[in-house]
Amino acid sequence: MCTSIIYQAGDSYFGRNLDLEVSLGQQVVITPRNMVLNFRKLPTLDHHYAMIGMSIVRDNYPLYFDGINEKGVGMAGLNFDGPAHYFPIQEGKDNIGSFELIPYVLAQAASVAEAKELLANANIADINFSAKMQAAPLHWIIADKTGASVTVESTTEGLNVYDNPVGVLTNNPKFPDQLINLSNYQSVSPAEPQNTLAPGVKLPVYSRGFGSHFLPGGMDSESRFVKATFVKMHAPIGDNEVENITNYFHILQSVEQQKGLDEVAPNTYEYTIYSDGSNLTKGIFYYRTYDNGQINAVDMHKEDLESTALITYPVNDQQKIEYQN
Amino acid sequence: MCTSIIYQAGDSYFGRNLDLEVSLGQQVVITPRNMVLNFRKLPTLDHHYAMIGMSIVRDNYPLYFDGINEKGVGMAGLNFDGPAHYFPIQEGKDNIGSFELIPYVLAQAASVAEAKELLANANIADINFSAKMQAAPLHWIIADKTGASVTVESTTEGLNVYDNPVGVLTNNPKFPDQLINLSNYQSVSPAEPQNTLAPGVKLPVYSRGFGSHFLPGGMDSESRFVKATFVKMHAPIGDNEVENITNYFHILQSVEQQKGLDEVAPNTYEYTIYSDGSNLTKGIFYYRTYDNGQINAVDMHKEDLESTALITYPVNDQQKIEYQN
Amino acid sequence: MCTSIIYQAGDSYFGRNLDLEVSLGQQVVITPRNMVLNFRKLPTLDHHYAMIGMSIVRDNYPLYFDGINEKGVGMAGLNFDGPAHYFPIQEGKDNIGSFELIPYVLAQAASVAEAKELLANANIADINFSAKMQAAPLHWIIADKTGASVTVESTTEGLNVYDNPVGVLTNNPKFPDQLINLSNYQSVSPAEPQNTLAPGVKLPVYSRGFGSHFLPGGMDSESRFVKATFVKMHAPIGDNEVENITNYFHILQSVEQQKGLDEVAPNTYEYTIYSDGSNLTKGIFYYRTYDNGQINAVDMHKEDLESTALITYPVNDQQKIEYQN
Amino acid sequence: MCTSIIYQAGDSYFGRNLDLEVSLGQQVVITPRNMVLNFRKLPTLDHHYAMIGMSIVRDNYPLYFDGINEKGVGMAGLNFDGPAHYFPIQEGKDNIGSFELIPYVLAQAASVAEAKELLANANIADINFSAKMQAAPLHWIIADKTGASVTVESTTEGLNVYDNPVGVLTNNPKFPDQLINLSNYQSVSPAEPQNTLAPGVKLPVYSRGFGSHFLPGGMDSESRFVKATFVKMHAPIGDNEVENITNYFHILQSVEQQKGLDEVAPNTYEYTIYSDGSNLTKGIFYYRTYDNGQINAVDMHKEDLESTALITYPVNDQQKIEYQN
Repeated sequence: MCTSIIYQAGDSYFGRNLDLEVSLGQQVVITPRNMVLNFRKLPTLDHHYAMIGMSIVRDNYPLYFDGINEKGVGMAGLNFDGPAHYFPIQEGKDNIGSFELIPYVLAQAASVAEAKELLANANIADINFSAKMQAAPLHWIIADKTGASVTVESTTEGLNVYDNPVGVLTNNPKFPDQLINLSNYQSVSPAEPQNTLAPGVKLPVYSRGFGSHFLPGGMDSESRFVKATFVKMHAPIGDNEVENITNYFHILQSVEQQKGLDEVAPNTYEYTIYSDGSNLTKGIFYYRTYDNGQINAVDMHKEDLESTALITYPVNDQQKIEYQN
Repeated sequence: MCTSIIYQAGDSYFGRNLDLEVSLGQQVVITPRNMVLNFRKLPTLDHHYAMIGMSIVRDNYPLYFDGINEKGVGMAGLNFDGPAHYFPIQEGKDNIGSFELIPYVLAQAASVAEAKELLANANIADINFSAKMQAAPLHWIIADKTGASVTVESTTEGLNVYDNPVGVLTNNPKFPDQLINLSNYQSVSPAEPQNTLAPGVKLPVYSRGFGSHFLPGGMDSESRFVKATFVKMHAPIGDNEVENITNYFHILQSVEQQKGLDEVAPNTYEYTIYSDGSNLTKGIFYYRTYDNGQINAVDMHKEDLESTALITYPVNDQQKIEYQN
Repeated sequence: MCTSIIYQAGDSYFGRNLDLEVSLGQQVVITPRNMVLNFRKLPTLDHHYAMIGMSIVRDNYPLYFDGINEKGVGMAGLNFDGPAHYFPIQEGKDNIGSFELIPYVLAQAASVAEAKELLANANIADINFSAKMQAAPLHWIIADKTGASVTVESTTEGLNVYDNPVGVLTNNPKFPDQLINLSNYQSVSPAEPQNTLAPGVKLPVYSRGFGSHFLPGGMDSESRFVKATFVKMHAPIGDNEVENITNYFHILQSVEQQKGLDEVAPNTYEYTIYSDGSNLTKGIFYYRTYDNGQINAVDMHKEDLESTALITYPVNDQQKIEYQN
Repeated sequence: MCTSIIYQAGDSYFGRNLDLEVSLGQQVVITPRNMVLNFRKLPTLDHHYAMIGMSIVRDNYPLYFDGINEKGVGMAGLNFDGPAHYFPIQEGKDNIGSFELIPYVLAQAASVAEAKELLANANIADINFSAKMQAAPLHWIIADKTGASVTVESTTEGLNVYDNPVGVLTNNPKFPDQLINLSNYQSVSPAEPQNTLAPGVKLPVYSRGFGSHFLPGGMDSESRFVKATFVKMHAPIGDNEVENITNYFHILQSVEQQKGLDEVAPNTYEYTIYSDGSNLTKGIFYYRTYDNGQINAVDMHKEDLESTALITYPVNDQQKIEYQN
């Protein structure tokens, strides 16, 4: 379904794989500081932090899948079908539609700590964007340039904001359950294991990479959570921006869903439509798509962030092969 | 299919689980020293070591599934369908039928080393016991009271006698392949693992026994090989014969095939028909059956081992419940 | 830690493995109908259903690990370290200590449905039996002779009584999480699998029992939950009481913890101290111990159930070997 | 270590991941038809098929890691440390050094069938390229544009040429053992599994992609063999060359070794240095590197294939980011 990570390497990089069976017409969308942001049940924000991310736009409203703001806060919404539960409007609460949550947070929070405060009194309200655009069952990861991150889940238990010790989010089951499952894999290692199975017996070392033999490789959300955590935790730190963003995309690539492997309806397959990642300090948004392996970039600071209208870039989705002869 | 082990605990204990879908009418059979042993292509043995084991008897010939001799050598034949290959009679070789191999070795070898010598010029000949009793595809484990053991496999490559560093045998694939597969599991441990997956992250310890999470539990021969090795290697040593034989049977129990789990034909299930084990020093043969959890024992030294005829004991196969009121 | 199951085979059989590193001095204890049962915060029961089970006795009070009553309801308490949470005394609630819960339910409930009613207003109160006997962190399984079962968990969320669709309980994590984890293993089968990995390619069938290759074999609570469920769900139904109780113990045996595999402190190992099971209709209590493979039985209906004092039987813990010569 | 595949999609695509801890200075190298090819123990070839591939060049000799020829035959050498065994020069055999094998085959074979004939009398001789360039322990995959492929292994058993039913090669263990291990995973599927674990029980469907839960994700050669086979077998067929090569690289990407995961010496990590793939019909060679996600291409037919000297192209190893603003 989806995988989101934060990778720290001097600067911090945040983004996600979007895994779906259909592309929804997303673009790279910059919301400048003075673009008026309306909310259904909360006051309008006339001025706010600028943000950039992958989004569809409906009725001039940015429906972000994920994005970052100019203060170095990133946020992504990921499928959470099953546990996700949104509530009726509650008096005395900050009632916010699930589709409004990313702009609401990125508009106002300069850190994960501020995002937590902003959500302290929130109620994720069961509001649809429109009759045609029903609310999707989501949960969210919020991260900032210090490397901090939290997971936000609205279930029948209410709204939970969990500290995220690994900086990874995939999908169902609930976040505490993902951590419990992660525990099962804690012996996975880049190093060759000790033989504790049959101490003193010399077993054949038939391959390199033995230490990661039990790493899961499935498309399901538990497998991706474990693998992304392992790859991220052991990823090297580059010497410069290009090395870092290269390493970053390799982490996401490790949990890519290739076409043909996850049949969600007869002859319909979910796959990793795009991977994106932003430098949370520099405000540069990078992405690749399944169909185009080259990395593309949009720098929010090259735009007029004081303007009032959405700025959009189309997604480069054509494979661009470099022919050397 | 089957699992055989040697367990060292002061004395050494050797035996096996027999996993099949039908019981073949086995008995506890003692072959005394002066019972004449004929072989199809090799000289008759009029005098030899006495032996005891689980066997069927046809035409007054002991067709041992497994057994031990009075010198503390044990041997078991296990299913090896696929790789097992027996050869035409070869001039200049010691041609021995697969059904003759256990009595041939136990009659003459006082150690694993002597068994290896005995097999140095052997050819496992493609001879059937009778038109009705075709040769089964087998491989063998030979062990002695010092704890040494070897695996004997006759395949298209010829006859291989492998040192067995773990003292365990199950079935196909070939023994070197079982060891390669074993390597995959070497990080399995009785102790709680270090977190090398996500170093520095405190993961929930939700259960005891985490260190053995990746231990396989399937009925297939690779899973049983790995599990039996782990259980055996970490089994404690008892203070006396009863504790030792108790521990021994718990090792075999860990790879028992319960009824209903291994469907070998429609509505026909393989299961562990019996488990046996002998004290290689004392010559006492113990066994339990699927239907009778109590341990039974036959002591070869309580018989006249100088006699000339097979001595048999029926298998106690009725559950004997101790009613306390 | 522990595994409890209910097995339906005409009659229903309920009981558990007790996995610990020390034996606590348990006995087979019958509480007859007129033995006065006191509770710390609830009215005394002078007359109630008779019960039998494995228990320690302190101050003439039966501290049952597990047991059944004469109406065919069984109940077992299993370690639930971590999530278990007991609460302060709450006005208006039925405040019940964790150590009182089994006698409280078995004394009064003639079915799982009645047990649920009994617990509808319960609060598991944070009461110790004594300064020396602190409350253990537990959760419970209740089952009845119809095969129905529920799991009872008191956590920070409050008291949850979950329908238990598989009739199995082990330990942490919470019951809904065990079911989620079980889902991962749903392709495990007694039958040979179809090749959907590489359709059309003929792969070697090197072993029987392939369909259960992914069955876990670890000592941890998730592995035991999965394995016990699979074995139980495919266990055959016997033709008589002895066959049934034989099959029943083989199910528990499949998740036995052998000595040496689960190191809970340096050189201290948890293992399956005893396995027990009762015929819920007939009121016969059966058990085996690690040290004694023979099945023992105590029939509650052979006692005077109208009496007023506890009736106890010692646990037969000596291996009783049947010497055939 | 390495993974090689052949992917059929109308045209066939063949190539590999090269996984190592150091880059060896490889280039894209075209050997035209009239470049003289010398062999140590076999006659010189003055005229032969043209070839293209990834290679280092020493003393004007192309030491191919992998390549294809103009007839649509591809071949790659992969690490086979352990089982690989090269032999002394044998009279009456076609003695060929391991480093000569790729040019030897690609120069002369127009199909896998012809390659098999060419190797029918071969002896992989224990010859080093030079004192400095010792022979590496390798095995090989040969594939052609019909989709046929074989695995070539020289071990102590001699030279084996195995039909390769899956068109995948990684490393040790021996090829037949890889197929045996593959069998363990045959129930892995893109589709949601049937619940055969606990038939009739409704288990929670918490995630998409359940059918691939048991797919391995480790860096070791068995894990990569299984995963590459599954991904390849279910990869869709594109509508055109660009779609096909895109799909092809996604297959290899699924078994990419990310940096940091496979520690082969202290602080030294193996990773996927490059991935390449050729259209076997069109003679176009494509590649990407760890450091450069864009696909590069060299078309052998755009060169003068009648020439006599090696034609080389440097590897584009710089990340080329497309900045959209």
